[in-house]
Amino acid sequence: MTGRVSLVGAGPGDPELLTLRAIKRLQAADLVLYDALVDPETLQFAPRARRFFVGKRAGRPAITQDAINRLMIREARRGHQVVRLKCGDPFVFGRGGEEALALAAAGIPCEIVPGISSAIAAPLLSGIPVTHRGIASAFLVVSGHAESSYVPVLRSLAPGSATLVVLMGLANRAAIAKELIGAGWPAHTPAAVLIGISHDGEQAWHGPLEALHSVALEDEDNLPGIIVVGAVAALAAIIASQDGERETARTSASLG
Amino acid sequence: MTGRVSLVGAGPGDPELLTLRAIKRLQAADLVLYDALVDPETLQFAPRARRFFVGKRAGRPAITQDAINRLMIREARRGHQVVRLKCGDPFVFGRGGEEALALAAAGIPCEIVPGISSAIAAPLLSGIPVTHRGIASAFLVVSGHAESSYVPVLRSLAPGSATLVVLMGLANRAAIAKELIGAGWPAHTPAAVLIGISHDGEQAWHGPLEALHSVALEDEDNLPGIIVVGAVAALAAIIASQDGERETARTSASLG
Repeated sequence: MTGRVSLVGAGPGDPELLTLRAIKRLQAADLVLYDALVDPETLQFAPRARRFFVGKRAGRPAITQDAINRLMIREARRGHQVVRLKCGDPFVFGRGGEEALALAAAGIPCEIVPGISSAIAAPLLSGIPVTHRGIASAFLVVSGHAESSYVPVLRSLAPGSATLVVLMGLANRAAIAKELIGAGWPAHTPAAVLIGISHDGEQAWHGPLEALHSVALEDEDNLPGIIVVGAVAALAAIIASQDGERETARTSASLG
Repeated sequence: MTGRVSLVGAGPGDPELLTLRAIKRLQAADLVLYDALVDPETLQFAPRARRFFVGKRAGRPAITQDAINRLMIREARRGHQVVRLKCGDPFVFGRGGEEALALAAAGIPCEIVPGISSAIAAPLLSGIPVTHRGIASAFLVVSGHAESSYVPVLRSLAPGSATLVVLMGLANRAAIAKELIGAGWPAHTPAAVLIGISHDGEQAWHGPLEALHSVALEDEDNLPGIIVVGAVAALAAIIASQDGERETARTSASLG
């Protein structure tokens, strides 16, 4: 009998942000393949599963995407319940769609379990609503990894017509700010840089778009970072102040 | 002693898509204020709480936003743990930011608990990845409720540069398709209409952008509907076919 692969979103980091369905799949798993940013506590929900780390170490993948696909297919054919545990949501970057297609091509039953995406939750946990009545009725989530992916969309978008959420764009923060200001975004547009939100060592910077290039980051290669640009970013000063516990963390880790 | 308000995302509908943190807050709640699309099963996690329905019935709000805010503030001042349970994610439309600001102005401790947003999860559960390597490195989520909110952003965005996810836009589907085609989106761009995903009675339509105006919907006023436009929408035909259980539901409920 063929097993099944579940592509499961682990959320932004904190195990409390797993869904019930994710936990059920972990509990029933024979094998868990997990990424670098998955919290070790999360794996405690899969006590009987073999566990393989398939993420990146020091920026280099532990195993190729092809090898991950072959491993999932082989184990499912042996009748195993396989959980492919991915940070955030399986279909927001992270190659979940490619894995689903590879499984489909091999005829392996596959289920996708959504997760809390840090694209929405990192701003939220920092006091920034990506939409807000009268301020933002749209938000754009874009990969900042390569110019070819973010330039066409950022250059075209009417300035201020959507909140921008840039994932994997910390290294390009100066180029992204320049691109936006060149496209007509006011230099004083509120912005934020959010690092490792819901992980240990979370850090937040708030300032105007024109100062984004000067943000000094620690350990930026090892924690996921998100850039938010738009008027909603200014709401953090009010909303985050109501959450005593997080405010302490924010203050102690604020960036220069 | 002052209590606390938790603005909690309930996810797209199915109680299995609640987070552990949402369940903990429900279990500890003295009072739950819930919206129309929250599944009744979800409320079973709050056995000791008083429960108030504060959503819309037949399109009309049961209670004004001001009255909801006053109720949360009064109950927190009485020392109660209040859960404001919202569909999807509290900060993706749905006025979560406004409620957080009202609580901040009143000095009430407030925590925001993220939820699975149907903006990402309804496409996912229908086999559509909002991002996909080589096809989409960005996605835009926009309210389709009013022309003034969607026209500036949809008119400016370079055609095909992001997957579009339109919430609350079913009634304007013809105008939205016309706007996009007028802005240069190819008429054959894959599109989907997803209704009530993760609720009973879910329905899905797949077809080209130019046919969006002709989609015939049942019961569209009572279930949340999402429009997806972009090349990724075509992947549903492959990805969704691998999930036996959901495929049956899809076939039986496909729309004309």
